[in-house]
Amino acid sequence: MTVEWIAADWGTSNVRFWAVSTGGSILGERTSDKGMGGLKPSEFEGVLSAVCADWLSSASHVVACGMVGSRQGWVEAPYQTVPCKVCPNQMVTAPVTRKSLAVHVIPGIRQLAPPDVMRGEETQIAGFLAENPGWDGVICLPGTHTKWAHVSADEIVSFKTVMTGEMFALLSENSVLHHSIAATGWDDDAFADAMSKTLSRPETLAGNLFSIRAAQLLQDTDTATLRARLSGLLIGAELAATRPYWLGQNVALIGADAVSMPYVAGLAAQGVKVKRADAKSMTLAGIKAAHSLLEIA
Amino acid sequence: MTVEWIAADWGTSNVRFWAVSTGGSILGERTSDKGMGGLKPSEFEGVLSAVCADWLSSASHVVACGMVGSRQGWVEAPYQTVPCKVCPNQMVTAPVTRKSLAVHVIPGIRQLAPPDVMRGEETQIAGFLAENPGWDGVICLPGTHTKWAHVSADEIVSFKTVMTGEMFALLSENSVLHHSIAATGWDDDAFADAMSKTLSRPETLAGNLFSIRAAQLLQDTDTATLRARLSGLLIGAELAATRPYWLGQNVALIGADAVSMPYVAGLAAQGVKVKRADAKSMTLAGIKAAHSLLEIA
Repeated sequence: MTVEWIAADWGTSNVRFWAVSTGGSILGERTSDKGMGGLKPSEFEGVLSAVCADWLSSASHVVACGMVGSRQGWVEAPYQTVPCKVCPNQMVTAPVTRKSLAVHVIPGIRQLAPPDVMRGEETQIAGFLAENPGWDGVICLPGTHTKWAHVSADEIVSFKTVMTGEMFALLSENSVLHHSIAATGWDDDAFADAMSKTLSRPETLAGNLFSIRAAQLLQDTDTATLRARLSGLLIGAELAATRPYWLGQNVALIGADAVSMPYVAGLAAQGVKVKRADAKSMTLAGIKAAHSLLEIA
Repeated sequence: MTVEWIAADWGTSNVRFWAVSTGGSILGERTSDKGMGGLKPSEFEGVLSAVCADWLSSASHVVACGMVGSRQGWVEAPYQTVPCKVCPNQMVTAPVTRKSLAVHVIPGIRQLAPPDVMRGEETQIAGFLAENPGWDGVICLPGTHTKWAHVSADEIVSFKTVMTGEMFALLSENSVLHHSIAATGWDDDAFADAMSKTLSRPETLAGNLFSIRAAQLLQDTDTATLRARLSGLLIGAELAATRPYWLGQNVALIGADAVSMPYVAGLAAQGVKVKRADAKSMTLAGIKAAHSLLEIA
């Protein structure tokens, strides 16, 4: 089978390409660390050509999502504004020198009030909707910047970003707490206690962070336990901030196991059962959904 | 006048020495970047000798506070446990090679439940009490790790550490928000709005941090305004966490203007007027108070 087109998930730090046949089969998958963050607009085509040279002998077009469409990316794909259709038909074409190649970039989504933005997650949501037609509820995408999106009638109605992943990394690696937080390890009870504490009394969060350091100094608390405690405090704060998104809602979670686990546990403790989906699969499904709109147009 | 003794405020990053006469006059002041963080226990005496060589020809003793007394410092000065007297008479002597020199280290203070620690701030509190005898209420010491201490009958009854200063630095310098936060500048209204929002609804904090980035992207909000907004969100969270420490209390604030300003503004907005004191002066006054106990002993 020949490669008809290339799907690309082009983020800040990395890029992943898939070779897709006419019938939609995946013929290959490649990754590179040439993320948007290190590239000038003129350099994206070179990365594509270098990584996917053989595929490009037959592929006629590329559909890409992620930070590649930001102002600092290959081409700015202006945000769609919520409420808006999950799967966009307003892709933007990036400039290329190679003849007979069209590069289509999926736009991100913005919310005017309260202000919020996403680039990439909208494609995962589109993939989830493509695989779960008519699904109605809330989709949570855990990560450095976790997104919560309310989806109804194939539209993203509203969404909220919470920086829990970045906050955990900053506190566990770059703050005074780094002495006290193990790189791995876990403690279910410590997580549950801390989460419940912040969720029920969110005003206690700021006062409980330094206690992690003090607990290690004074009580020699195990650093894997303290890792779970920090995660619990922060997930509790996130669930307190996003209560309207999950309370009494139909919730789906798109993400890898490691990043999803605290969310699954936290929501389960609140009696919320989530439907799980894999982030990479949803991204590819979302790019395919955008591609199918392209063919119709 | 000759130098009778040396006062030292020996922190993690820096050290400050004062030459003190028999009558308590300050004959000189010197600083060095040889903080505890970069020194082995055996290296402290060398720093003292190098920076204060001439003073040591007459000085017979040193009184030091701060991280110099931590486990990684010159000598471990075990924590006193609250409730305890503000001014300690349990100083620890550090090992020295120089004959006829005694180095006395002021112990830090710990709280067992909830676990908390301080080293250095207890000396500033002692200085404040020495200058304000019989003072009863709450002392706030803003900084990287802000301390709130309840003081009554010359004892520290309880205290709480909030990492607001470190959190502000991490978020404004090392997170995705760093694009959106000016290095200087301020906006009183933005601070007041953000503080009031987090203080009255602390559960909204986690959802409002990323909005700072989105506001800059979508609304081109001035980065000095966003600096004040971030400070407001975090100070609001701190005041929510420390409400029992300031609500209806007699509050004193020990700190330099820049670090104290958001606290003064935040507490004023809640109808709390604070008594201000300078950190450096209080440190010296506290070391002098500890020194006077030494002479009595």
